[in-house]
Amino acid sequence: MNIRPVGDTVSERLPELSVLRRCWPEYADVGSTHQVEVAGVRFGGPRCVVVAGPCAVESRDQALGVGRAVCAAGGQLLRGGAYKPRTNPHSFQGLGLEGLKILSEVRQLTGLGIVTEVLDPRLVEQVAGYADMLQIGSRSMQNFPLLTEVGRTSVPVLLKRGWSATLEEWLCAAEYIAKEGNRNIVLCERGLRASGHWSYARSVLDLNVLEPLRRATPLPVIVDPSHCTGRWTLVAGLSRAAVAAGVDGLLIEVVESESARSQLRSDREQGVPPQVLAEIVGATRAAEATVGRRP
Amino acid sequence: MNIRPVGDTVSERLPELSVLRRCWPEYADVGSTHQVEVAGVRFGGPRCVVVAGPCAVESRDQALGVGRAVCAAGGQLLRGGAYKPRTNPHSFQGLGLEGLKILSEVRQLTGLGIVTEVLDPRLVEQVAGYADMLQIGSRSMQNFPLLTEVGRTSVPVLLKRGWSATLEEWLCAAEYIAKEGNRNIVLCERGLRASGHWSYARSVLDLNVLEPLRRATPLPVIVDPSHCTGRWTLVAGLSRAAVAAGVDGLLIEVVESESARSQLRSDREQGVPPQVLAEIVGATRAAEATVGRRP
Amino acid sequence: MNIRPVGDTVSERLPELSVLRRCWPEYADVGSTHQVEVAGVRFGGPRCVVVAGPCAVESRDQALGVGRAVCAAGGQLLRGGAYKPRTNPHSFQGLGLEGLKILSEVRQLTGLGIVTEVLDPRLVEQVAGYADMLQIGSRSMQNFPLLTEVGRTSVPVLLKRGWSATLEEWLCAAEYIAKEGNRNIVLCERGLRASGHWSYARSVLDLNVLEPLRRATPLPVIVDPSHCTGRWTLVAGLSRAAVAAGVDGLLIEVVESESARSQLRSDREQGVPPQVLAEIVGATRAAEATVGRRP
Amino acid sequence: MNIRPVGDTVSERLPELSVLRRCWPEYADVGSTHQVEVAGVRFGGPRCVVVAGPCAVESRDQALGVGRAVCAAGGQLLRGGAYKPRTNPHSFQGLGLEGLKILSEVRQLTGLGIVTEVLDPRLVEQVAGYADMLQIGSRSMQNFPLLTEVGRTSVPVLLKRGWSATLEEWLCAAEYIAKEGNRNIVLCERGLRASGHWSYARSVLDLNVLEPLRRATPLPVIVDPSHCTGRWTLVAGLSRAAVAAGVDGLLIEVVESESARSQLRSDREQGVPPQVLAEIVGATRAAEATVGRRP
Repeated sequence: MNIRPVGDTVSERLPELSVLRRCWPEYADVGSTHQVEVAGVRFGGPRCVVVAGPCAVESRDQALGVGRAVCAAGGQLLRGGAYKPRTNPHSFQGLGLEGLKILSEVRQLTGLGIVTEVLDPRLVEQVAGYADMLQIGSRSMQNFPLLTEVGRTSVPVLLKRGWSATLEEWLCAAEYIAKEGNRNIVLCERGLRASGHWSYARSVLDLNVLEPLRRATPLPVIVDPSHCTGRWTLVAGLSRAAVAAGVDGLLIEVVESESARSQLRSDREQGVPPQVLAEIVGATRAAEATVGRRP
Repeated sequence: MNIRPVGDTVSERLPELSVLRRCWPEYADVGSTHQVEVAGVRFGGPRCVVVAGPCAVESRDQALGVGRAVCAAGGQLLRGGAYKPRTNPHSFQGLGLEGLKILSEVRQLTGLGIVTEVLDPRLVEQVAGYADMLQIGSRSMQNFPLLTEVGRTSVPVLLKRGWSATLEEWLCAAEYIAKEGNRNIVLCERGLRASGHWSYARSVLDLNVLEPLRRATPLPVIVDPSHCTGRWTLVAGLSRAAVAAGVDGLLIEVVESESARSQLRSDREQGVPPQVLAEIVGATRAAEATVGRRP
Repeated sequence: MNIRPVGDTVSERLPELSVLRRCWPEYADVGSTHQVEVAGVRFGGPRCVVVAGPCAVESRDQALGVGRAVCAAGGQLLRGGAYKPRTNPHSFQGLGLEGLKILSEVRQLTGLGIVTEVLDPRLVEQVAGYADMLQIGSRSMQNFPLLTEVGRTSVPVLLKRGWSATLEEWLCAAEYIAKEGNRNIVLCERGLRASGHWSYARSVLDLNVLEPLRRATPLPVIVDPSHCTGRWTLVAGLSRAAVAAGVDGLLIEVVESESARSQLRSDREQGVPPQVLAEIVGATRAAEATVGRRP
Repeated sequence: MNIRPVGDTVSERLPELSVLRRCWPEYADVGSTHQVEVAGVRFGGPRCVVVAGPCAVESRDQALGVGRAVCAAGGQLLRGGAYKPRTNPHSFQGLGLEGLKILSEVRQLTGLGIVTEVLDPRLVEQVAGYADMLQIGSRSMQNFPLLTEVGRTSVPVLLKRGWSATLEEWLCAAEYIAKEGNRNIVLCERGLRASGHWSYARSVLDLNVLEPLRRATPLPVIVDPSHCTGRWTLVAGLSRAAVAAGVDGLLIEVVESESARSQLRSDREQGVPPQVLAEIVGATRAAEATVGRRP
């Protein structure tokens, strides 16, 4: 009896998409990954990439403080929001262009490449002028005009999965970017909404998707334990789990310090303190050394 | 700003339950675990316990073959169903008492303690006469007469979480057992039903629950990647993830061989071959050695 | 292009089950219903059956008070729990046999047939001695020994759907009863757990299931808006919706009065006051008169 | 004991939003509705508004044929997509501007006002030049730049709920429109993704949300049974249910005829034939006549 891996059957039922292995001959081998390089850091290479930073850029001092902490902890890229998709329109919406300029300065001072979200197709060019990688958030996974616009740039894209999106919908969203000529896409799993977890976490990290995803596409996959949980105390355990499952990277929110936490204007409970980030990086490197990147 | 761990706030909102740390002074320290011993193997101790075996006991030869394979692969306890909760009443329902006798013989020949499911309060005494640990399946998590009955035995109990149960409902189910005097309970997470995963997996493993659960209760927690996914090719990755997150054990379905798979009368796609079980055990031991049991 | 009704394709993919139209030649016509008679009241006949009563029987006075209110409001059968499946084992668990005796007395005094839940296969005979209809709750939908035991009686059964059960699982559960010889089964939809509704309701009533269900099986189908919502203020609207969709009955919790509500030992927010029950019955009869039972 | 309606407590926990009754003194009375007028038709008035039309405008002939059928069946507004949010980028994406021009011509010939979706903030002005009402689809519910842009027009907006959005998220999305000065918003419930319904429907219509929504906001609420189910055979039953629950309107997809169905380039299984639309309109008017609009 021949039980075929589910990723193969999922892939076959999908329409022709240029992000699928079966339509991308270079990556027909399921062990191969389309490496995506961002500011000298490679997703899908031998190391698990740790992207870390504040939820939102709130000031030059805060961003630089967190950036230096990320550097010191061993993070490889800096994440930080200049344009923030906030549920409530009356909440802080990010510093916008001012935030991008701050990120640019932090890049100069720390050497960390910048990953930042773009929400509006009209701002893709602006954000792409500052970012090393454009982030598409969960709420925007099926914002097709936005996907098309980032597909027209040559900047690498981080595409988060929607919180109730199927694998098929997610890959089709990636195709909106790829069909414009940009296949430098890193996929980011951030958890599904289910029914039993609301008292302790925002969603449930779907590690089951990794194997079918890898069989279907050569694009690298990372996870975001911070937004998945919404609680920093759950982030380290989930990060270790994701690394052991063989992800190509982690996206982690960091606060500068416990005292800085109370000043934050968004998602205060979510960022890990720098020492926890350092532990996560340490555990990631230890796991790579002993069991290899994709055991 | 003092962000309290979510497990503490979840625990405080719960009613008084004897399985909660706050009602069990011996385990007030959140680092402590109530160890549960089963046939000489301890859940919650320094080693992650691998429980493995067939979905259902289908014959003496099959059960013994799988039992020996589990032994050889380093598994510590044997799981196997004599009474099977099958969705369709016309499907194979397990060998019943005959299956228990086979399990008993396999225990004698392999030395492995037996974990087996009980479905019916009227059969608790019978099953307890053969089993080293009584399993309560997901469908039975809120079968209160059954929980009460197993609580009246002194046999350790493996309590699976329902696939849309909240943490609060799960702990209350454990309390049905505990209130009768039996607190030798091991909790088993097996995935939640959500909305985006149906094309590749039955459910989504909820690793987020581990931290709040541990802060709320000292009971050991294991995971079942086999029933979570329903696909053996996803089991190894999920097992490594769970071990890295610090679980106290794994519950894994095994087939005797690929050729034996096609003969099976239940869940053919679910069991890993023995060599994959050996790899999982190996990865588990390696992780314990490098990062410790609960990093 | 011939779009086949989804109920037909769902039915065809199911295994052979004696509750399916395709295995029950008498009801091959999708317009026919297997009428189930309970104490002189017929489910699946020309009238929508209103079953109403307290969550739990708490005393003779309360049960009789509610029973009389149900009568006065036009309810046709009395529901009420003697054995209650409570999440927390330390909550009130129902009066048990004492509660059954009270229900029996209320039947004598009001003339209303009794619908009451059975949780334990060992108590089926006892409960069947008092009840006109045995209720299997959502938590017990896949309690297979219990289903088998009620299937061995000749008492009509009310089978609630589990809150994340598929249509296929629900029909297979009905088959556990039917295969023992009892096809006097009424199905009860009571809502699915999803992700967006937790701040205002326990679950989401799945009215989409009605059409596929009817095409697949001739068994009558009712809905339980009370447990679906957990809030009495949502019950009337949902009842009207269900009646308009053509259900064969409603299962509604009632309190004797607003002042009695505060004395209740379970689900205080759930019962409608008698005047709201009367309005629901009135709207049901009006809808039957104008649009017919299954428009 | 005073059980407060859940809509009130939900509303109180929300931040200050100009779409809430508690911030909109004119509509403090929970029985009042902010009527929204579209091409002479009023949402929130004495009649339930039936908006119907093709999924996508595919040609002048098809759109006009469906438009005339909608008129004949008693529909009050015409829906039809010129810009279609398709999961797969290689699927038909709508006729764009050409489609808008066709809709405009159909309006002239039939007298029906036009409801059509806008996906891209850069096209809001263009679409607003042709549409009587701008539709924001489920995938765009949290497309904040788009919401802001439609808020800057004076055109009424139809805001669909995301398929796993909470009530709170939905109202905050409406606020993104309202804060720009446009409170002519009609909310549209179209079903939540859950776990038990995948074999027969895309989602589960959440009628529970109606009561809390009405207590929280005076904005009219309609439902879309077509996208909720994805199967036309389920649409009539769900429509009757929604009307009975008191919705302010229905959004229904229609095919010109069964023979036309096979030619369609999107969602072939979804549109009801014109005679079914006529039945739905008839049932709606009958219900209004007997039980009133919001019984």
